[in-house]
Amino acid sequence: MTASRRTTIGHAGSLPKGVARRLEILDRAIEVFRERGADGTSLRRIAEAIGVSHAALLHYFDSREQLLVAVYAHAESQRHLAEGPAAPSGMDRMIAAAMANVDVPGLVQLYTTLVAASLESRSEVGKEFFTARFARIRESLTAELREGQQAGTVRDDVPAEHLAALIIAASDGLQIQWLLDPAVGLEAPLRSLAAMLEPR
Amino acid sequence: MTASRRTTIGHAGSLPKGVARRLEILDRAIEVFRERGADGTSLRRIAEAIGVSHAALLHYFDSREQLLVAVYAHAESQRHLAEGPAAPSGMDRMIAAAMANVDVPGLVQLYTTLVAASLESRSEVGKEFFTARFARIRESLTAELREGQQAGTVRDDVPAEHLAALIIAASDGLQIQWLLDPAVGLEAPLRSLAAMLEPR
Repeated sequence: MTASRRTTIGHAGSLPKGVARRLEILDRAIEVFRERGADGTSLRRIAEAIGVSHAALLHYFDSREQLLVAVYAHAESQRHLAEGPAAPSGMDRMIAAAMANVDVPGLVQLYTTLVAASLESRSEVGKEFFTARFARIRESLTAELREGQQAGTVRDDVPAEHLAALIIAASDGLQIQWLLDPAVGLEAPLRSLAAMLEPR
Repeated sequence: MTASRRTTIGHAGSLPKGVARRLEILDRAIEVFRERGADGTSLRRIAEAIGVSHAALLHYFDSREQLLVAVYAHAESQRHLAEGPAAPSGMDRMIAAAMANVDVPGLVQLYTTLVAASLESRSEVGKEFFTARFARIRESLTAELREGQQAGTVRDDVPAEHLAALIIAASDGLQIQWLLDPAVGLEAPLRSLAAMLEPR
């Protein structure tokens, strides 16, 4: 957390007061969710745990779902900042992201809860966020895999866009199986998937 | 639905009245969830939609979560009965199951909602059901893949248990991406995964 905290303080120094306060709330909320995820907690109880008033929380976020999506997006962007400019290749990045979640089961739970909620017809914020998020990750991963196919480092008997969708799906699905039963492992099966991407 | 209805009527004729009534409720509930999933509906509203009293529903199910898990388990067992004894191989079965869900987006949503809920610390019914379900599917798929490895039809450079966990994870994760954006496809990427299982 040291790196991400520094990042936030950096924000706070250079951003308008409202934006900085919003980021502070998100940082606190991540800490709250780190252990156990959202676990059905109401916005009021989240406010208590964060140490702000319910009204203050509603000033920054219209609904519980909007707060939770913002918390998840903030946690994800912190991770990207922490990764720095020398980002590893797509598959290694997915493995690194999944492994980073080993220390924060609450974020995996929050992610799964939010994805599930985004499938419900009432959810607009979530549906929009996750549809865009999946599309963005698939697109960048597809481009990277296609380059690998051209360079001969990735198998080319399967379309790059299928590989991208499968890698994301496997990573998401494995984290759920691992949360329910840690014996399933996370890094080892993902390394096996990486081996399956190699040219035949 | 013709096949599953026949199955239920078959049950109703040979089972104690309470059990038959419980199955009738589950059949009706599946119809209700077929289109839109659970979508945060209360037990009271589910009872209305099913056409039984709230009290009658509580006689058969202790909680909303218990009803939803039972609905999902019932839908899954109907599918197994419909498949018949000549079941295809593990990977084909996963593809067939995923494709069967194309017609019932509500069940994919119900499944994802229940899996997400099962990760919450308050959930006992769900955690137990899905931990056991994943373990059971992983075990049978692993045994089948190991046989394939011995017969030379499945790649053996990767442990069978990794392959099993990855296939289940990819199938679960893809269904979510597909629900949010049908352009991702479901059968085509799963067929690509099947191709990746072939010996090198």
